[in-house]
Amino acid sequence: MSMRISMDKQAVQAENQRVAEENRSLFRQNKVTVINLMSSPGAGKTTLLEKTVEQLAGRYKVGVIEGDLATSRDADRIRALGATAVQINTNGGCHLDAHMIAKVLPDFSLSELDYLFIENVGNLVCPATYDLGQHHKVAVLSVPEGNDKIAKYPVMFRHVDLVVLNKVDLLPYLPFDLKQAEEDLQMVHPGAQWLPLSALTGEGFAAWLEWLEQRRQAAVAAQ
Amino acid sequence: MSMRISMDKQAVQAENQRVAEENRSLFRQNKVTVINLMSSPGAGKTTLLEKTVEQLAGRYKVGVIEGDLATSRDADRIRALGATAVQINTNGGCHLDAHMIAKVLPDFSLSELDYLFIENVGNLVCPATYDLGQHHKVAVLSVPEGNDKIAKYPVMFRHVDLVVLNKVDLLPYLPFDLKQAEEDLQMVHPGAQWLPLSALTGEGFAAWLEWLEQRRQAAVAAQ
Repeated sequence: MSMRISMDKQAVQAENQRVAEENRSLFRQNKVTVINLMSSPGAGKTTLLEKTVEQLAGRYKVGVIEGDLATSRDADRIRALGATAVQINTNGGCHLDAHMIAKVLPDFSLSELDYLFIENVGNLVCPATYDLGQHHKVAVLSVPEGNDKIAKYPVMFRHVDLVVLNKVDLLPYLPFDLKQAEEDLQMVHPGAQWLPLSALTGEGFAAWLEWLEQRRQAAVAAQ
Repeated sequence: MSMRISMDKQAVQAENQRVAEENRSLFRQNKVTVINLMSSPGAGKTTLLEKTVEQLAGRYKVGVIEGDLATSRDADRIRALGATAVQINTNGGCHLDAHMIAKVLPDFSLSELDYLFIENVGNLVCPATYDLGQHHKVAVLSVPEGNDKIAKYPVMFRHVDLVVLNKVDLLPYLPFDLKQAEEDLQMVHPGAQWLPLSALTGEGFAAWLEWLEQRRQAAVAAQ
């Protein structure tokens, strides 16, 4: 039985990849830079997005897809800031897939968007290997989770281009070995980028906006 | 294809349930109280277990099964305190299942154990619905994750007998609405128990030990 499951999983992944490429092609045609944000529950993805939407407002058009098991709380938070936000409820599913994304894309005016952020289900395991068609995968790790998470959840950190270390304002109150975390990241994923910040206080946020700007320029230039 | 997947999932769950009942029967014969601990990555399950092992030492014999995607760091931490700890690496799997537990039970002298703690993979989604044969499922939620996690991950909180709210020593530094979290828990799972504590400072720990003692007495009396 496990063999059959594993074959089905491969078929599911292949079909996901096909739809992800269709999404990617749509994003490319419409010159929209797409970021897939992943983390544990409570690492601060939504707060990071709220601050990002605020900072980009006026200069760029931003859309957000919010993935959750239940509730539309996150999309409500983003909409309150004036951005277009669409909620996907997975009804218990532990990650977003390319089909779910494809289904909600008609809710956006893609040709008008500069950025589309996808906030995945809070989970350091399942979302890692599902391509949604994004340009970049970003993992958010937060200080209270502890510096051992990169070594303990290597699949996620191997699949992302950038690791945002959030909640650095809590470093004075918590044991977190920054040097060890950076070493673990280079072990698990040599060359991966690392960006410490606090979405709450704004510390380190300029570097995150700069990273986004470079990615947008690269995506537009690649048309 | 999705129908076939879903039938396979049901078959997997049924087979898991069969093995879970075998585990449960072994636990009953050996009068060992078994707790399945689940949470997001970094909520503090291992620190809670370290403190629990320390507090129970001398009075009770304790075994620990550590579930992780990779590394044996958690089992090493528990062994350093003198308890028997066995590491299960799921190689990317997002939860433990009853077979994985059955396979490592011969590594313990079950008849000598009073408690067996199972630390599941850090994940608020996948482990919720897999019975391991435990007496009780406990979810650990931590203050930095935010009070909205119960409403956003309802399946997990519906499946547990007790929610430990860990890291209450951080309440002065973080926005966390205790009242809202308790209300959400009663909405999602009426009658569920709620136990705020800090595994770091020891605040609230006596109530956790008392809860464990009552569960042990009930398990022994049920023989």
